[in-house]
Formats: sequence, structure tokens, C-alpha cells
Amino acid sequence: MTPPDANHAAPPPNGYDPAGFRPLTFHDAVPAFHAGTDTPRAYLERCLEVIAAREPVVRAWVTLNEAGAREAADAATARYKAGRVLSTIDGMPIGIKDMLQTKDMPTEQGTPLFKGVQTRTDSASVLALRQAGAVILGKTVTTELGMSHPGPTTNPFNPDHTPGGSSSGSAAAIGAAMVPAALGTQVVGSIIRPAGFCANTAIKPSFGAIHRGERLAFSQSHIGVHAGCLADMWSVAFEMAQRAGGDPGHPGLYGETAPRPPARPTRLIVMESEGWSMTDQATAGAFDKLLGQLSDAGVTILRRRDSPLIENFERAIAQSLAICRDVCGYELRWTLENLIERFPVGLSESMMSRLDLARGMSIEDYRLVLLEREAARRAFAALAPLADGLISLSSVGPAPLLENKAKDSGVTHTTGLPAFNAATSVLGSPAITLPLLSVGGMPVGVQVIGQMHGDAALTGLARWVVDSTVPVLA
Amino acid sequence: MTPPDANHAAPPPNGYDPAGFRPLTFHDAVPAFHAGTDTPRAYLERCLEVIAAREPVVRAWVTLNEAGAREAADAATARYKAGRVLSTIDGMPIGIKDMLQTKDMPTEQGTPLFKGVQTRTDSASVLALRQAGAVILGKTVTTELGMSHPGPTTNPFNPDHTPGGSSSGSAAAIGAAMVPAALGTQVVGSIIRPAGFCANTAIKPSFGAIHRGERLAFSQSHIGVHAGCLADMWSVAFEMAQRAGGDPGHPGLYGETAPRPPARPTRLIVMESEGWSMTDQATAGAFDKLLGQLSDAGVTILRRRDSPLIENFERAIAQSLAICRDVCGYELRWTLENLIERFPVGLSESMMSRLDLARGMSIEDYRLVLLEREAARRAFAALAPLADGLISLSSVGPAPLLENKAKDSGVTHTTGLPAFNAATSVLGSPAITLPLLSVGGMPVGVQVIGQMHGDAALTGLARWVVDSTVPVLA
Repeated sequence: MTPPDANHAAPPPNGYDPAGFRPLTFHDAVPAFHAGTDTPRAYLERCLEVIAAREPVVRAWVTLNEAGAREAADAATARYKAGRVLSTIDGMPIGIKDMLQTKDMPTEQGTPLFKGVQTRTDSASVLALRQAGAVILGKTVTTELGMSHPGPTTNPFNPDHTPGGSSSGSAAAIGAAMVPAALGTQVVGSIIRPAGFCANTAIKPSFGAIHRGERLAFSQSHIGVHAGCLADMWSVAFEMAQRAGGDPGHPGLYGETAPRPPARPTRLIVMESEGWSMTDQATAGAFDKLLGQLSDAGVTILRRRDSPLIENFERAIAQSLAICRDVCGYELRWTLENLIERFPVGLSESMMSRLDLARGMSIEDYRLVLLEREAARRAFAALAPLADGLISLSSVGPAPLLENKAKDSGVTHTTGLPAFNAATSVLGSPAITLPLLSVGGMPVGVQVIGQMHGDAALTGLARWVVDSTVPVLA
Repeated sequence: MTPPDANHAAPPPNGYDPAGFRPLTFHDAVPAFHAGTDTPRAYLERCLEVIAAREPVVRAWVTLNEAGAREAADAATARYKAGRVLSTIDGMPIGIKDMLQTKDMPTEQGTPLFKGVQTRTDSASVLALRQAGAVILGKTVTTELGMSHPGPTTNPFNPDHTPGGSSSGSAAAIGAAMVPAALGTQVVGSIIRPAGFCANTAIKPSFGAIHRGERLAFSQSHIGVHAGCLADMWSVAFEMAQRAGGDPGHPGLYGETAPRPPARPTRLIVMESEGWSMTDQATAGAFDKLLGQLSDAGVTILRRRDSPLIENFERAIAQSLAICRDVCGYELRWTLENLIERFPVGLSESMMSRLDLARGMSIEDYRLVLLEREAARRAFAALAPLADGLISLSSVGPAPLLENKAKDSGVTHTTGLPAFNAATSVLGSPAITLPLLSVGGMPVGVQVIGQMHGDAALTGLARWVVDSTVPVLA
């Protein structure tokens, strides 16, 4: 047994201090595994101690498979000893969002209707993680079917606040330094927003970049990675894509084993989207200060007034929340109709209202919203020659209180508004959120956004932004 | 009880006579349902009598839900009486290929590994059929996981011959006049080839045109319809797409409730593909005679020597079987790896050899084959201004004997070679097979092929071909 790490097993801190927060990282532990001064098994035990200390309040996990994880960590330990390591993430403990199937744990999808359901199958990404030697530690809490109705998870920086959703448990587990990485999924704003609320570094990759396995029923959902740092985030994403590939018919994640070195952008475009007008003043002020730092470092910051192409883009994404509501609602009908026939009672009010909206749509309505989405993608692609990337907030402010409810486009949100996320989900473009702001003692993320398949280059841009700025407190 | 229909309950005929064969049709029974002189329940009972008479030899069905079907037929009967009909296929008995999930019957996917597996869920297309009032009569035999290893079904025109696969039971059930329509799925040649072997009229629609529900793991699979005539074939496809939509992110099947009226093409391109050089002489001769009839009727027949664009297209599709093998193998890996971990024994030798080939592929190999597929699609789209459609055989000859095995591109085929089908699966273009040839006393299909989303127009072309030719016997 390794003694608990005083830093990580500390009681829930009262708020977020970017200077003091030390997320759990893995890549920097690997040299000690090779040297024999540390082992994946010992690393896992440290994770379990943090979980034991913090889980009663954070409630990030639906299921923990401690026995299976110890066995996998021992196997990884033996591989390091024998010099036969499988990948850069061999031995890394990882949490799996409970939307994704695991052969050794139930997959409950955040609804009591699937309590204890065993699929006995690994989702493609989970299978790939095991092939890479990762230690599948447990299933993390998701909102109901990955949509709006919340689970029991609290924000690791203040338990009165939401961790965000739908990847609530994955984001909170990183924020609580329980594991170095966890898988999330995003249809509207389910990776980037909770990751921002919980001070994660996280990626929603290009659409199709990581195989979604049994989760292909949405035309704009993504599998992504929540992590404590860029290096671990990228390693997990890359190792998965090398083994599982991308979605069927897609080329999968492009790049190399390591994230790119820091690369200073010449020009960055600020993406306002629907989020900007909903953002609170303190958060907007903090974001502007961060932009000021980038500007001081020599980056040209472009806004909608600077180019008719940017203005055109902002108009094309101005209805992204409604596009998401209609695309996802129509695509979810089939699943929901089956569910309510099997279980006439048990779906949340918020889910039933989504179904009601979707039932009012014809196939022509759906075709129309696909055209709007396609137009937004074209307007976005037209920005490629103008700048190295886009920058934006990851949410309209810090995580709201647990009891807070926001209504938008006929949909009730209880885990924060996905106003800055709907656009990037509609675009299918890669986005990385970085924990660069602290507002009222809570984390707020800043996301950098690249063009389709520009994921690897985006890691270099993100690395430069992290290295060249100091977090802003407001 | 309606007396058995002497034509349809006849003992298995000894061979195929296009003039004497009367497949079961539905659309022409509907006026009698409205008039009250016939009912969906009586129609169903007639189907059940044919099934009772022929199933012992044909073996088209895995499961029959006679009680559920009678209940659904009675409900349809009541709707006709009340003048509240749900759709053009209200009351139509339909068979569902056992690759697709049904809430009231097991889904065994042609493998003993899934014996009795109940998913308690309707696939999107099945749910849509029920919403349209169709009578879900049972599950039809598929080859193992929809690939090459055969099930027990025999050809309804001669039980020593294969019905083709993988939609073996659906094709045979139509050929035996057991039902007016059945769903099939095609990844390589699983609808058009068996449909041709069993004298069906069948459509493999444009890629994405009919929602594949839980079957989205292949990037080029399709749900299609086997039927006794064009009208029923189209009604089933159209009513499904109106309710379930197309695949996520796809516009779904375009068209109107009824198929198009006969439309004479001005020019048709003969698609040789890999199939032409493998075709037996009698079949090739019969096809040439049919082309002669079209030519006599004023259609200009174009071949590869007539245009460098056609030659370019033929070269682009010349490796379609290999493209299919690599695309499908790579995309199936994840499913197979999970299966062999759960069930170390139980997959066929042919399936294991597919997995071995796929395991040798890297993500870059997969990207490369996607590029080849994309190039074939571009070469095909370039033909659009040249002609109203393409025409080709549906198979390299009549259904081979049950024990026949053919090897191609490292894959063993026991249900006939998909040499004329791989190309249209690669292209994603709509194809309709018509029972226009009889070779050695067995049916051979002729397929007409349209450009993407040209499904509805293709029904008009197909109708004209049927109306303007007489079947060729060889």
C-alpha cells in the first residue's frame, strides 16, 4: 500500500484556486514505472484512496470494479517490468462514462430503467483502451440517457454546484483528482461544458474521430477525453483511435503519439455564438483579460466586426441550440418510442418534453435542419484561411447551483446551459477546453477550436495558450 | 378460414417458369379490404397456409409469431372497417430478416451464439412498419451475422440450390409466395443477389435512405425490401422512411407514396463490374437478349467502349469485392473481438478468416480503402449526365447448388458470388432487381441502378423495363 497523497486526498476544497489545483497526471509517472520506483498497481491504489476520501460527497461513480482494475494494473506492472509495454497509456486508470458499454460492469445510461443491465460487451473505445493496456476502473455518472436530467454527482470544487452534464461523473472525477483520464460523450455540450466547470483539460475531437461503438444513433455525437493535462488527454484519444479507428466510414483521429509542441497562433477568431449574450459580466471580463494576454503575446484577435466572413459564420451558428434540439430529438425518437412502450413510466419530464417536440417533426423538417447544419459547416470551413483557430468560453459562466434550472428552445437544462457548445457540436469541429479562468471561486473553461481533422495541430495551439498565459481570477 | 390458394400452396415447383410464377402481392388486395369482401386477417391466414405447406422444405423462417400477427391483422381489419387506415401497407404481413431487432421475437443473427436472445426492442424500421399498420409475421433466416456462412434455407424453385444470402429467408419467402414483402439488409450483395436467385422484385435503396436502427456499424450497409412486385416493394420502403427517417444525418428516402409511372429511358449504361467475366455463357446470352429487347424498344445501350467516362467508371469499381472485404472486415473487428472473448468457440471458419484478414489492417490501410471507395463514387456520379441509369445482372448466374463453395479475395462464399453486387454496395447507389431471366430452369435477376437519391425515378425506369420486355429463357 502506498500512503495517500496528501494533495489529492484532501477534503473537498472550498472553491477553485488555479494556482493551487493539481490535477492527477499519468505521463509523468511513466518514467518511474520503467525505472521500477513506482508501479501501475501503486498508482491505482493512490487513485482508489482519493476516491475513498472524496466519493461520498462528489458521487462521480456509478460502479467501481476494484478487483478487475487491480488485476489489470498488476498485468501492466508485469509488462513494465518485462519491458513489453503496450502503449503510452499502459497501466493508466480510466473512468468510462456510463453511456458506453463495458463487458465487466453494467451500463445504466443514467436511467433507473436500465438498472443493472449487463451487455457483456465492450464499446469499441473501451475495447481499444484495454488493448492499449489501460485499467478500466469504473463507470462514471451520466445524466439520463446523456441528455438533461441530472444524476447525483456534485461539483468537486463546491458540492452545492452542478458538475455539468452529461459527462458529470467523468468531469468531476478529474476535478477531484480521482483518475488521470475519463471518457465522455458530447451530443450538444456534454464534454466541454462539464470539463470547464470542473477544471479539466478535455477534448471533443473531430466528428467521427473516435469509434462510437454502439452509440452511433446520433449524427453529431462524439466520444472524447477528460484529463488532468494535455499530454494524457491526447494519449488516450490517440491510442483509442489507432486501435478502434474512427466511426464507420470515417478516417479516424489524425496525429502522432505525442501531442504537438507549443505553436503560437498568428491569428485567433473569437467565437461569440449564442453564448456571448448569455454570459455573466464577471466571466466575460475574465475572458477579455485572457484575450488581452494573448494579444500582448503577439496574437491578432479577430472578432465578428473584423470580417464579413466571421459575421457570416456567427449568423450561421446563431441557432445552434435549436438545431441541436431538432437533430437530436428526431434522431432519439426511435429509441424513446421503444423505451416508453417497454416502460410506460420512468422517463423524466424533461425527456418526455423532448419526445413531444420530436414527434411534431416530419422527415422534411429533419431534412431542413440538416441543411441548416450543413450551411453552418460551410460557413465555418470558409474561416480556415483567416486564422489558426477559434477561441471561446466553454460555458456562459461558472457551474450553477444544483437546483438551478434554465430553459432554452423548449428544453430544460439542469446542468448549465450548453450555449457555447451547441455550435461546436453542430460544426463537428475539434474543441479543447483549458482551465484558464476562475470566477467567484469556481473554474470556467476556455475552449480553442480547430478545423475538421485539425485535432493534432490544435493540441500545439492549446499547449502554447497554456504556456503563455496565467489563469485569470475574477 | 379462407380456403388455401391453390396457386400458392402448391408443392415446391420443379424449377422456375416466369410465365407461370405468380408471386404474392398486396396492393391489389387493398380495394377488397375497403369493400369488405376480403380482410387483412383472411389475407394473413392465406399466407400462413402457404407457409405451412412449403416451410418444411424451404425453411425460410427462424421464428413465426402467429398469435401476434393475428392480433395485428385483426386490428388492421377493424381499421379498414372503420375507414381509419394508417398507410398503404396497413395489414400487410411482412417478414423481418433476423439481423434486425423485434420486441416480440428473439434476434439470433444467424449464429447459435445468440440463440433465443431477446432485445425487447424494435429496430427503427420495424417500429416504423408497426406504426404504419403492417403485420410483423416473423423473423427470416440470415447467414451467420449477415456474412457468408449459410443458414438452413433452400431455394423455393429447387431445394438443392441456395436461396442466396445473407437475406436468405426473406428472398425465399417471397419466391415461395409466403408473404408479399420482407426486409433484407445488404453490406455486399445480401439483398439483390438472393432476390435475383428467388425471382423477387427487390430494392437496395440509396445508402442511408432507411434508418438502420441498431445496425449502423457498417459504413455501407443498407436496409431494403424484398417483394412480389414493384408497388409493394416501394410502399414498404416509403412508409418506413416516412416514419423512421433515414440513417442519422441522412435525408432519408425521397419520393411519393406510389412508385413512379413507367418512364422509358433514353440511354442505359451496361455495368460490367467484376461480375461480367465470371458470368456463365447461358446467363450472359440471356442478358444480351434482354438488352436486345430494350434496344428494339428504342433505348440506346452504352458500354464501356462507348465512352472514356464509362471505361473510367469500370476501372474504378474493378476491385469492389476487395474494397468490400476490407471495409467490412475492418468495421466488423470490434464486434467480432467482443464475440470471441465471450464465446471462444462458435464462430464459423469463414468468419474467423475474415477476422484474421481484418486484424492485419492498420487505420491507414482503412483510410486508403475509404479513398478508393470515394473515388469509385466520384467516377459513378460523373456518369449521371450520360444516361438515365445503369443496367446489369444481379448475379453471375442462377443460384448454385447448396454445397457449392466459391473463394474470392480470401473470403469463402457459400451462397453465390456477390460479384455484381459489391460495386453497387460500394457506390451506395439505389438498385432494383427484376425477375426477367430464367436460366436452366432457375431465376436470374436483372438490376437497374440509379444515381444517389434517385430511388423514386428508378421505380419508373424499372416499371417501364418490366412492361416493355418479356422474360428471357435460356
